[in-house]
Amino acid sequence: MTDQSTPEATSPNSPSAVSAPTTPDAPARAGLSRRQLLGTAGATGLVFGAAGAAVGYTTAPADATPLTSLGAKRAMFHGKHQPGIVDPPQARGHLIAFDLAPGAGRKEAAALLRRWSTTAERLMAGEPAPHDDTGIALDAGPSSLTITFGFGRSFFDRTGLQKQRPGALEPLPDFSSDRLDKARSDGDLWVQIGANDALVAFHALRALQKDAGGAARVRWQMNGFNRSPGATAHPMTTRNLMGQVDGTRNPKPSDPDFEQRVFVPADGEPAWMANGSYAVVRRIRMLLDEWEKLSLAQQENVIGRRKSDGAPLSGGTETTEMDLEKTGKDGSYVIPVNAHARITRPDQNGGAAMLRRPFSYHDGFDADGTPDAGLLFICWQADPLRGFIPVQRKLDRGDALSPYIRHEASGLFAVPGGAAKGEYVGQRLLEG
Amino acid sequence: MTDQSTPEATSPNSPSAVSAPTTPDAPARAGLSRRQLLGTAGATGLVFGAAGAAVGYTTAPADATPLTSLGAKRAMFHGKHQPGIVDPPQARGHLIAFDLAPGAGRKEAAALLRRWSTTAERLMAGEPAPHDDTGIALDAGPSSLTITFGFGRSFFDRTGLQKQRPGALEPLPDFSSDRLDKARSDGDLWVQIGANDALVAFHALRALQKDAGGAARVRWQMNGFNRSPGATAHPMTTRNLMGQVDGTRNPKPSDPDFEQRVFVPADGEPAWMANGSYAVVRRIRMLLDEWEKLSLAQQENVIGRRKSDGAPLSGGTETTEMDLEKTGKDGSYVIPVNAHARITRPDQNGGAAMLRRPFSYHDGFDADGTPDAGLLFICWQADPLRGFIPVQRKLDRGDALSPYIRHEASGLFAVPGGAAKGEYVGQRLLEG
Repeated sequence: MTDQSTPEATSPNSPSAVSAPTTPDAPARAGLSRRQLLGTAGATGLVFGAAGAAVGYTTAPADATPLTSLGAKRAMFHGKHQPGIVDPPQARGHLIAFDLAPGAGRKEAAALLRRWSTTAERLMAGEPAPHDDTGIALDAGPSSLTITFGFGRSFFDRTGLQKQRPGALEPLPDFSSDRLDKARSDGDLWVQIGANDALVAFHALRALQKDAGGAARVRWQMNGFNRSPGATAHPMTTRNLMGQVDGTRNPKPSDPDFEQRVFVPADGEPAWMANGSYAVVRRIRMLLDEWEKLSLAQQENVIGRRKSDGAPLSGGTETTEMDLEKTGKDGSYVIPVNAHARITRPDQNGGAAMLRRPFSYHDGFDADGTPDAGLLFICWQADPLRGFIPVQRKLDRGDALSPYIRHEASGLFAVPGGAAKGEYVGQRLLEG
Repeated sequence: MTDQSTPEATSPNSPSAVSAPTTPDAPARAGLSRRQLLGTAGATGLVFGAAGAAVGYTTAPADATPLTSLGAKRAMFHGKHQPGIVDPPQARGHLIAFDLAPGAGRKEAAALLRRWSTTAERLMAGEPAPHDDTGIALDAGPSSLTITFGFGRSFFDRTGLQKQRPGALEPLPDFSSDRLDKARSDGDLWVQIGANDALVAFHALRALQKDAGGAARVRWQMNGFNRSPGATAHPMTTRNLMGQVDGTRNPKPSDPDFEQRVFVPADGEPAWMANGSYAVVRRIRMLLDEWEKLSLAQQENVIGRRKSDGAPLSGGTETTEMDLEKTGKDGSYVIPVNAHARITRPDQNGGAAMLRRPFSYHDGFDADGTPDAGLLFICWQADPLRGFIPVQRKLDRGDALSPYIRHEASGLFAVPGGAAKGEYVGQRLLEG
């Protein structure tokens, strides 16, 4: 058991002390677990607004020790952008879409986003939910929890806000490999939850579902995972369930055009989407039984990269530029013309680029033993027309990977910029 | 991202160097990732038996850095007992049951257990599978992977080994709260996989499924999770999805009667079960919507313990003995007569005790928004007639928790002792 203590000052940690710059994965301010926070509250009579009183945990013991490193990591709720976009992908993820309930409109949606924002801020700080906390995350630290909110196209009809609907929310085109389940696609509202502890993530999921109350109903919900922090010596590299190194060419925050590619400009349109981003969500099932019948060489030709380390078949290491013109002894391209990596390369797509931040998923086996597993593909871009759509169109015409995957669900969501202190996510839309 | 490096000597790590005493969660021998191992193999021309050659990863780069602590932790395959019983519960778990294929009998089962044992030994050491490795766990360390094999009652009919069937495998009695799905219950063979990295766990699941080949078919499969190492400052305490501290009274390896309660004696019956254990597996759905409608006081009366810290309602801390006779001002017991903790207390059940080592599960939401979530209850005992059965009978007659849970699947498996070096799990049964 890793037990890397990070003792820090035990300054009072009230909600008003929670503000901070957007520092992904900053250590929790005081290195305190929920139990410690509650213990302090009990000893001093302090409560966190309604939280301590509502939950009633005034009897927590004083024997708590400082949080270990994984639990103590904390992402910030307030900031220029919402959390969960640039933050490192977490080990556990929940995606959930809601539809507004019959009779609920703009007013109820605004109240819901306000409740959700309050809850998200507290939970990301490692505190209990404002009301009727379930206790599932007690003892645990924030564990890099992020909560991200988005609006689907149908939201604007339901709330009478059609004039505020971004052009970027036009429905995605049909692709030939789509086998979309409409019941698990789209939705008025979308929430992405990520955390490095599965109980912290589930705690957030239930708290947000409760907040929805009578205002919104669950439309679909999916669970995913990524590598655990510390499981590999290569923290920048992730693999998918096909065993491929995944995300090598992802734009990096240090790239000069990163902000421009991923986020709507501060003076962009519509104004309420300033510093926001668009998320394309696709449940991509991997046909693993078929994929695993291929030889290693066949798999590498499908992708255009070596499986061992992700280096292009034209040579070098994972980060070496592909040599698309390189030919083998027989005169054919070393990286086949239909190789996935060739087709998705930004300079082959008019510079289209998106930030991929997926989770893998595994929902058991079908009755015949086929795994229901693959990728909860999530990509982020300033404009889907210059990100996902052109790349997917090109893949649709000749990606060697196509026979081994199946797009089973799809969503496109407008994710507004981060909430300022005292503001809730989407306030500029709902009260604009 | 936690990046606690644990540089260690880089001694050659061939399969023959993998033997070791049963030391749960011992650091991996040389602190090497799969990639490093493969890189070394590539540089020196060494391969791990058939593995390196079959996988063909001879081009791995030399830039690998030492594994971080979570990935480097390693449990041992060989030993007195199988792994995955006394080892700390891992963050990710897979349960899978197989039925032997039509026409497959004792011979095919023996060959399968031999394949599975070879694969389990390699994977638990952080090496690739012996054949056609999928690559899903490349880069990652063992991550405390454990793989445990068991036999169900039907296995003995299918293999003509009825005379070797333990009396302890008599079918469990029916309980009034059972709503069992037969398709997700029982099975000829049962495998438990646990790891602190979800990709390492899935890699093992697929490798074992492939090993089954034409000899056995998946009957059912379930996924679970526990708290991540380091998420909480209280590593000994876990919580379930009801928010309760769970497992407080679990027997501890330091207890004088621990071995006797959990494991079949070395001279026990049948002889092939020496040092083995019996696993009862129950998929227990939690009716969370109903549970969460209760007040904190109501929840605590159902359990008999405080939610905040797991202390008995009669006072003290989590580890304080319950005072079952203590009464309140109105003369009634402070710990109600039907409180879950009262009914399950070993001294109220003729000393019955079992080692609970569950995973939580969450398989999404039903169409009406109800979470399909709860506990993959797994308990270990030397004899189910003195462990699970008497406790469950008593719970069945008046547990205050009953209205909030539903047993949806059930299995009982004979888990033989650990394999000695050169032996496979179950060999003493299948070649006895």
